[in-house]
Amino acid sequence: MPIIDFRIRPPFKTFRNMVMYASGDRRDRFTRQLGFEPAPSASAESVELMIGEMDAAGVDMGVIVGRNSGPLGSVENDVVLEFTGAHPGRFIPVASIDVTNRKTAIAQIDAAVKAGFKAINIEPGAYANPLHTDDRRLYPIYAYCEDHNLPVIMMTGGNAGPDISYTMPATLDRVLTDFPTLRIVSSHGNWPWVAEILHVAFRRPNLYLSPDMYLVNMPGMDDYVKAANGFLSDRFIYASSYPYCPIKDYKEWFMTLNISDANREKVMYRNAARFLGLDGQ
Amino acid sequence: MPIIDFRIRPPFKTFRNMVMYASGDRRDRFTRQLGFEPAPSASAESVELMIGEMDAAGVDMGVIVGRNSGPLGSVENDVVLEFTGAHPGRFIPVASIDVTNRKTAIAQIDAAVKAGFKAINIEPGAYANPLHTDDRRLYPIYAYCEDHNLPVIMMTGGNAGPDISYTMPATLDRVLTDFPTLRIVSSHGNWPWVAEILHVAFRRPNLYLSPDMYLVNMPGMDDYVKAANGFLSDRFIYASSYPYCPIKDYKEWFMTLNISDANREKVMYRNAARFLGLDGQ
Amino acid sequence: MPIIDFRIRPPFKTFRNMVMYASGDRRDRFTRQLGFEPAPSASAESVELMIGEMDAAGVDMGVIVGRNSGPLGSVENDVVLEFTGAHPGRFIPVASIDVTNRKTAIAQIDAAVKAGFKAINIEPGAYANPLHTDDRRLYPIYAYCEDHNLPVIMMTGGNAGPDISYTMPATLDRVLTDFPTLRIVSSHGNWPWVAEILHVAFRRPNLYLSPDMYLVNMPGMDDYVKAANGFLSDRFIYASSYPYCPIKDYKEWFMTLNISDANREKVMYRNAARFLGLDGQ
Repeated sequence: MPIIDFRIRPPFKTFRNMVMYASGDRRDRFTRQLGFEPAPSASAESVELMIGEMDAAGVDMGVIVGRNSGPLGSVENDVVLEFTGAHPGRFIPVASIDVTNRKTAIAQIDAAVKAGFKAINIEPGAYANPLHTDDRRLYPIYAYCEDHNLPVIMMTGGNAGPDISYTMPATLDRVLTDFPTLRIVSSHGNWPWVAEILHVAFRRPNLYLSPDMYLVNMPGMDDYVKAANGFLSDRFIYASSYPYCPIKDYKEWFMTLNISDANREKVMYRNAARFLGLDGQ
Repeated sequence: MPIIDFRIRPPFKTFRNMVMYASGDRRDRFTRQLGFEPAPSASAESVELMIGEMDAAGVDMGVIVGRNSGPLGSVENDVVLEFTGAHPGRFIPVASIDVTNRKTAIAQIDAAVKAGFKAINIEPGAYANPLHTDDRRLYPIYAYCEDHNLPVIMMTGGNAGPDISYTMPATLDRVLTDFPTLRIVSSHGNWPWVAEILHVAFRRPNLYLSPDMYLVNMPGMDDYVKAANGFLSDRFIYASSYPYCPIKDYKEWFMTLNISDANREKVMYRNAARFLGLDGQ
Repeated sequence: MPIIDFRIRPPFKTFRNMVMYASGDRRDRFTRQLGFEPAPSASAESVELMIGEMDAAGVDMGVIVGRNSGPLGSVENDVVLEFTGAHPGRFIPVASIDVTNRKTAIAQIDAAVKAGFKAINIEPGAYANPLHTDDRRLYPIYAYCEDHNLPVIMMTGGNAGPDISYTMPATLDRVLTDFPTLRIVSSHGNWPWVAEILHVAFRRPNLYLSPDMYLVNMPGMDDYVKAANGFLSDRFIYASSYPYCPIKDYKEWFMTLNISDANREKVMYRNAARFLGLDGQ
C-alpha cells in the first residue's frame, strides 16, 4: 500500500522563516504536548534527514503546503515548486494564495494551475487581518475554484486564527452548502470542534477531514477514528503536519489505531490521490 | 413494558411529498451512514409494511409528527389526524404550526388542542426564512404554550436549519430560562452539541432530550447513554426518527445500550407518556 | 502529600445568604445529579462539621472564594478574611471584586493585596448586568492584574451566566492572548466546552483549569482526566466546589481517577501552591 502524507513543510529556504521553524521552542512545546519527541530533521533543519525519515517510515509521497500569511510567515509558490521539482514523484505541490484581493488571488490561481500545482491552500485566519471562512471576500475565490473544479485545502482547525472563533464550524458549513460541488479538505480537522465538524461532514458530502497533529491523544480522537473507520472512510485523509509531528513516529502511532486494512488504504492513500487528481485515481 | 416511539413519519399521503420520501436517495445515504439498511417499508412507501415492522419490533405506539416547512415539505394537521384516527390507540398526533404569524399560529394551536393533538411541534430552522430558537417572533407562541400547559416538541438538532448555527444550544437555553414551566423536547437532542445540551439539561429541569437517529454510533453517543441511565433518566425519550432509521433495527440496537431495566422503562415509555399527558400517567 | 481544595464556600455568616445555601433544594438537586448525597455539614450549615469532613478526607488546606454578585448573592471580602483568620494555616483567602466600575475595582484589588488575599476572583457572568469575559470594561482590570502579577480566578464554566454563551471559550481565549502573562484559573473548567477549552489550554500557557464539580461523571470527564495526566499536568487544579460536592466523597472519588502519583501531587497540591505563591513554591 503506498502512503501519502498530506501535510509536510520541509526545512527548505523560506519555509525556515515560518514561525514553525523560526520559533523552534514553541513548536517543540506543541510536539511534546502531543507526546512526541521532536524529529531530528526538524531540530537540524535538514531536508536530507527529513527524506530519510520518510524512507524509514515507508511514506512514499508528501504534499507540500506553503503559506501566504503575515503573522505565521510566508513561502512563495516558486519555492514550493523548486522543492517538489527537485524530487520528482516524491512530493506534490499545493499553491497558497493571497485572498485579500480577489483579482490577484484569481491570477495566482491561474498561474498555479498552469505551473502544475494540484490544489489551492487557503488559510483565512492566518492573515494580518484575519478572515472567518464565510467572509464575503472569499466568496468570489470559492466560486472560481468550484467553477474550475479545483480542490481546496483550508486550515480551519487548531491555531487557525487569533482565537478559537476561527475554527467554529458554522462558517465552513455555510461555505460547503453555498458551493455544493467545491471539494474542501479541512486541515487540522476543525479541531477541537470534533462532534460538530463530524456533523457537518455527515451532512455535506463535499467535506474531507484531515485532523493530522490534532488526532494524537487529543480530545475527540476516538470520534475521529470511529468516523475514519465508518461513515467518513472515503473522506478522511492522513497527514503528519510535519514538523509538528515527526513523520516516522506519527506513522507508527497511526498504525495502532482501530482502522480496518481496507479503510486504512483509503485514508493513507486513495482519498488523497483522488482528491488531488493524481493519475490513475 | 409498553414502548412508545416518539418520532414516526409514515409514508401516508402528503408525508410522501416531504424531502425524506421525495429524495429517497438522500435519506438512504443518511440511513447507511448510521450503519443501517433502509427499512423495506420506507423504500416501498407502504404503511402496511411499516405497521408490520412496528409489530415485529414490539413497538406499541408511535408519535406522528408532521411538518410545516417550505424547504423540507409540509404535512397538514388534518392528514396527521386522518392517519392517527384510522389506527385507534396505536398512534398519537402532534400538531405542526406556522410560526411566522403569531395570530394564525395561536389559532392553529387552539384548533389543534380542540381536535385532540397531544403536543405542538415547532421547527424554527425549517422555514424558508429560518429562525433561531430564541427569535423574538417565537416568544408570543412560547408564552401561549406555557400559559396553557401545552408540551412542545422542537427540532433543534441535526439538520435543523440551513447551517449548524441553528442547533447551537445557547438560544434554546434562553427559551428554557425565559419560560421556566414550558416543557420542551429537543428532537434530535441538539446533536452534535452533546456535552453542551447535557449541561443545559443539567441546569434546566424543563428540557427533555430525544436524540433519536443521532444516537446511533455518532460522536457523543456514550454521553447521551450515560445521561439516559443517570441524571436524565426522567427526561430522555426514545425515538427512531423513522424513516431515517428502521423501526425494528433501531429498537434491537437500542436494547444493547447500557441502560438499566428501570431506566429503560422510563426512556421507552413512561417519560413520553407523562410528557404527552396520556391517561393514567 | 498535602492537599489543597481550591474552591470552598463555608456556611459562615453572609456565605449563608448565597443562593447555594439559601436555595438548598436547588443545590441538593445538583449534588444528586452528580451522583453524591449532600454533605451533612451543608445541610446543617455547620462550619465545625465541614472542618471535620476536611480532616476525615485528609484535605489540608482550602481556598475560600467569596462572591460579588447580585443574582447569586455576595460575600464581603472582610467576611472571607475573618473566616481564614480564625483558622490560621488552614484556609487561603481570595478576594472578589465588583468589576462594573474600574476605579473602585482597582481600589478593591489594592486593598485586597494589602490585606493578604492571594488571588483575585472575577465572575463576569454573575452580575445583574452580566458580562462576557472579553467585555471591554474588564480589560483595564485584567491589565492591572497582569502588570502587578496578581493571579486571577474566573468562574467561566457551568452556570457562569444567564445562559451557556457565558461559558463559550472564544472570549476567554481572547483575554489569554491579549494578556499573555496574566495567569488565569478557569473555575468549573469552562465546562461543558471540554475539547474546546483543552484546545485553548494547549495553545495558551497562561491558562489553568479546575473543572471541580463538573468533573464528576459529566460529559468530557475522560478528556479532562487525560489532560490532567498528560499535557496539562502542571496546570490542572483540584477542587470540590463545596458545598455542591461533599469534600470527603469528592476526594475519595477523585483518588479513583487514572492519574499517576506524580501528576496527582501536582494537581492536588503543587499547582495550586505555585499559582497562589504560597511560601516555598
